[in-house]
Amino acid sequence: MTPGTRNTLADVAGVTIGHFTLKDKTLNTGFTAIRPHGGNLFHDKLPAAVEVINGFGKSAGLVQVEELGTLETPILLTNTFGVGTGVNALIRRAIAESPEIGRSTGTVNPVVMECNDGYLSDIQAMALTEQDAISALELAVESFEQGGVGAGAGMSAFGFKGGIGTASRVFELAGGQFTLGALVLANFGRPGDLMLPDGRKPHPKDLKAPNDGLPVERGSVIIVLATDVPLDSRQLKRVAKRAGAGIARLGAYYGNGSGDIALAFSTAQTIPHAAESDFVAREMITEGKIDLLFKAAAESTQEAVLNGMISADPMRGFKGHKRQSLREWLRLASHTV
Amino acid sequence: MTPGTRNTLADVAGVTIGHFTLKDKTLNTGFTAIRPHGGNLFHDKLPAAVEVINGFGKSAGLVQVEELGTLETPILLTNTFGVGTGVNALIRRAIAESPEIGRSTGTVNPVVMECNDGYLSDIQAMALTEQDAISALELAVESFEQGGVGAGAGMSAFGFKGGIGTASRVFELAGGQFTLGALVLANFGRPGDLMLPDGRKPHPKDLKAPNDGLPVERGSVIIVLATDVPLDSRQLKRVAKRAGAGIARLGAYYGNGSGDIALAFSTAQTIPHAAESDFVAREMITEGKIDLLFKAAAESTQEAVLNGMISADPMRGFKGHKRQSLREWLRLASHTV
Amino acid sequence: MTPGTRNTLADVAGVTIGHFTLKDKTLNTGFTAIRPHGGNLFHDKLPAAVEVINGFGKSAGLVQVEELGTLETPILLTNTFGVGTGVNALIRRAIAESPEIGRSTGTVNPVVMECNDGYLSDIQAMALTEQDAISALELAVESFEQGGVGAGAGMSAFGFKGGIGTASRVFELAGGQFTLGALVLANFGRPGDLMLPDGRKPHPKDLKAPNDGLPVERGSVIIVLATDVPLDSRQLKRVAKRAGAGIARLGAYYGNGSGDIALAFSTAQTIPHAAESDFVAREMITEGKIDLLFKAAAESTQEAVLNGMISADPMRGFKGHKRQSLREWLRLASHTV
Amino acid sequence: MTPGTRNTLADVAGVTIGHFTLKDKTLNTGFTAIRPHGGNLFHDKLPAAVEVINGFGKSAGLVQVEELGTLETPILLTNTFGVGTGVNALIRRAIAESPEIGRSTGTVNPVVMECNDGYLSDIQAMALTEQDAISALELAVESFEQGGVGAGAGMSAFGFKGGIGTASRVFELAGGQFTLGALVLANFGRPGDLMLPDGRKPHPKDLKAPNDGLPVERGSVIIVLATDVPLDSRQLKRVAKRAGAGIARLGAYYGNGSGDIALAFSTAQTIPHAAESDFVAREMITEGKIDLLFKAAAESTQEAVLNGMISADPMRGFKGHKRQSLREWLRLASHTV
Repeated sequence: MTPGTRNTLADVAGVTIGHFTLKDKTLNTGFTAIRPHGGNLFHDKLPAAVEVINGFGKSAGLVQVEELGTLETPILLTNTFGVGTGVNALIRRAIAESPEIGRSTGTVNPVVMECNDGYLSDIQAMALTEQDAISALELAVESFEQGGVGAGAGMSAFGFKGGIGTASRVFELAGGQFTLGALVLANFGRPGDLMLPDGRKPHPKDLKAPNDGLPVERGSVIIVLATDVPLDSRQLKRVAKRAGAGIARLGAYYGNGSGDIALAFSTAQTIPHAAESDFVAREMITEGKIDLLFKAAAESTQEAVLNGMISADPMRGFKGHKRQSLREWLRLASHTV
Repeated sequence: MTPGTRNTLADVAGVTIGHFTLKDKTLNTGFTAIRPHGGNLFHDKLPAAVEVINGFGKSAGLVQVEELGTLETPILLTNTFGVGTGVNALIRRAIAESPEIGRSTGTVNPVVMECNDGYLSDIQAMALTEQDAISALELAVESFEQGGVGAGAGMSAFGFKGGIGTASRVFELAGGQFTLGALVLANFGRPGDLMLPDGRKPHPKDLKAPNDGLPVERGSVIIVLATDVPLDSRQLKRVAKRAGAGIARLGAYYGNGSGDIALAFSTAQTIPHAAESDFVAREMITEGKIDLLFKAAAESTQEAVLNGMISADPMRGFKGHKRQSLREWLRLASHTV
Repeated sequence: MTPGTRNTLADVAGVTIGHFTLKDKTLNTGFTAIRPHGGNLFHDKLPAAVEVINGFGKSAGLVQVEELGTLETPILLTNTFGVGTGVNALIRRAIAESPEIGRSTGTVNPVVMECNDGYLSDIQAMALTEQDAISALELAVESFEQGGVGAGAGMSAFGFKGGIGTASRVFELAGGQFTLGALVLANFGRPGDLMLPDGRKPHPKDLKAPNDGLPVERGSVIIVLATDVPLDSRQLKRVAKRAGAGIARLGAYYGNGSGDIALAFSTAQTIPHAAESDFVAREMITEGKIDLLFKAAAESTQEAVLNGMISADPMRGFKGHKRQSLREWLRLASHTV
Repeated sequence: MTPGTRNTLADVAGVTIGHFTLKDKTLNTGFTAIRPHGGNLFHDKLPAAVEVINGFGKSAGLVQVEELGTLETPILLTNTFGVGTGVNALIRRAIAESPEIGRSTGTVNPVVMECNDGYLSDIQAMALTEQDAISALELAVESFEQGGVGAGAGMSAFGFKGGIGTASRVFELAGGQFTLGALVLANFGRPGDLMLPDGRKPHPKDLKAPNDGLPVERGSVIIVLATDVPLDSRQLKRVAKRAGAGIARLGAYYGNGSGDIALAFSTAQTIPHAAESDFVAREMITEGKIDLLFKAAAESTQEAVLNGMISADPMRGFKGHKRQSLREWLRLASHTV
């Protein structure tokens, strides 16, 4: 399938992404914010769904997305111990935008997803602040960096440097062009398990400075899928599940200690918080056409991880722990072929 | 079935409960901590399971309990906007107790469950602190208060004052006596929907000072079940599901806006974080005997809600909002019969 | 809430019900067919959802309903060992109506649900035929019997005679009147567990000829809910879940050996098998109004069971096993009060 | 990882497999039976679990496996319209072996899984009989054929001939050698989607006699995993999920019309139907070691599909529909390289 113009999540019109990166001697962490649209998400929710591929994870907000099939805050990605702070930041921001929350109407469901960056960053420091989360949200734009930035600053994948990656696919429906985009926070996979699309299996040990003393995998991968195709939440859950096919093609087997979670939303229609009538008309894709989105989800997830890994620079982080870049492996590999 | 000695969750040996209550002019909120055993839960986890009866809720930690079937922190109950703070408190406490967390071993999964007390308390204030959560944990004892205390301070149920309630049941297995206990954070049910076991349907309007301008239900109920019977997590999930039968008998129909969630754990055996061998032997109940626990779960949940409501004093809270006590209704009702 | 005109599932316009009953010396069994509309369901499917309250059951077709959210055959109720025959009957009937099935288009998903009537009927005989299933389908009408008929012929509930029961509720939405109906195949509950709405607990032993040697519960209950309110499958699943509240109010705690399963469908809109366009517009209820359906589902399920039990005549069946009628208990009870 | 001695499901000691194949002018179908152990499965059940990767399928018995985590009959694989007949055969066989079923004890839960072979076989004929299923069961042996045999007779995969395939992996735990095996009924994947482990993408069109007029995918894949490692049903469900990773690596994205279902069981311990005591001791793997099984499940599933496709002979079936063999493609491909 064909990538979109930018080959990013932001190819889905209205979606913007912002990073806040915290780097110092012992810290390599941050927030990445995904804003599904530019308005007030609490007032104008989006249909959404979650697929827990492997639930060794601490993400917040998934239970309500599963029940109601709606997303009512932006999505924050961060490190495992930044979730509580991210939750508080999203609540305060929602109250500021919609002062009726918790007063004349119900509460709000903040969505914060995470991976463990404790190998390259001092995760025990719990160094991120609510303001850092707000910064990521405020910096959200259509054109954003990939690799070791934002929530991806301290992440690892398959023994290489991991982080934020993205890709997209475009396709035709009903005579028009539509898009599905993926953004991943890639922090999964053991050294030696990575499979490239051409069958090669890169191992960090092939580089001159091999990683030593790698811990047992404690990684995770978060996948956010967005599309402008009208889908209901049941359909979005089916699409989210196909993110698992994408990472499997890279060699993942959803390791025990890996929190592998996919969230998908559609920007085609909003769901008003305060509905005016008892019934509402919604458009959705005919089920017989949904394979297009399944294939796009698998492909763009697979490529998003590779894009993130190739974009990421090598890093020496917390306690001198090192991660090399897949980009370097590819450069050397092509030399030797 | 027969109640245990105290008729509380603490009839399950080793389980203790602590409250931190915050009451001032506009605030009626707090934390209630449930400590499943007195040791280090991260090192010695317990089998556990979650049943999401209705997922309009913001509880934290449920995804991992579902995947791994283990509980590795105490459980905090609080208001909806206290979850992030509770999460941070549990993480910091776990790190203090087990400094290897996020360093030489993986991270920790904090479990914080919530209801919306915004009718009687200024929930937007986000007034609870991490220290408040720690206080609740440190104050945990076998003999604890019910009603409008701890997380229950500002809760409502069926138009009456709600809060923390508890009950237990004992029964025989393998020639010995075993216990199942329930503790609820009751904040659910519309005025007029309550059904007493004798068929009466108490309505707050029957009291002299009726509640006016009641908002549409935005309540929830959290049910924590503990037992000393050896159960695996699949069995515990089945037991947790029966909490839903208990609240249904009170007139609940799991309202759209109600986050109705049950968590069950067994204290019979611990699961070591760092297993020494590849295989482990575990005891569990024969499936054919599990009806005893199902019945105990339904009964003790139903009674726990009533115990909590009867224990709760009437309250005038935030913005002058009032809730009367079911205790008062019962007193008047017996007069008039 | 107010019952519909007939207080049956057929108050939902277009829904018809047919029974085939097989009674002889050792057999008390049959098929009950529910036809959601009078047309070709494979061509014009209905949105549907399943809630497995307790999965000790052998019903067919549930996996696909869960995945796709559609119903494409009528529903057959029968005894546990009649499922295979029911499946074959529905397939052959679908092929006869739509010869393209399994040729130029995909296959068809027959839905057959069951309870174990082995106490009052010789279930090992596997006596029902495909023609019997077809008879039930062909006999489907708006006005149908309750009690020990069709699939209900040999069923038991709470130690009394069980069987087919039904009830309905009407309510207003968008200025019009809408209906939700329930039909149950009631074969659940141990003697002594039944709770009437007024708090009485009828026990068969109170009758002059008590049931002796009752086996451990091996019962089940199937609940079919229909409504003319436009709902999508996610919403229908939420509604189906509330059937569990209805049976809990009768004293059920979803016993280990009980296959308690609810299926809900909406007749408001059909989903064409061969969609002409890539997108489709669907109407659905605003989530904030769904409590009406939740309450109607709980109430009508509870009443349907009681209606079925009261309609059922006492029976002496296979091996002389006896079941008395709740109707008789109520008559005697009112005498003694 | 290393394959077992035979590289089949039967490398797990005690597991046997039998085929009944029905081939004539218009029919290419059959039953494949998997017998998890040689004894009476109803009396000595096995822990088991099901993962529905994509639920466009009509398999029987999955609901109860999900609830109770046990397998109590052999597993039958067949065509979609053979499920009812397979169900009846398993019930009758279970009653013959255990006459108390449906009399003094409960009923039995037959497990029959299916794919649609309607492209190469006249599926509308519903030609398989109960005796055919019994034949497959009685013919079960350790050494069995792969390819277009038994249930695989009329199956297709990626535009090639599909069918029954198998593979296994061995690994060390607690100082001993253990095995996980996979058997697939492969009937999934569109022409052009297949990815070989070396990155090649075989397309039937590359062969001299291309397939014309291929229908839209209506395929499915059933994966049965067996292991001698002691696992409980929660762990088995996690293992079953990894079958999805295996088929994704082949290019699958779990197409809308594909019923992709995995069932896993462990032969390490049996669960008696009539337990003698209230508690039972069970051995299980330490969760931290389960990655071995995850990886083995993904690898053996992936290879099982390829083994089945390579084993399968080309076929001209119903209505002259043709499927070529991947074996032929590989032979030609190596010529041209």
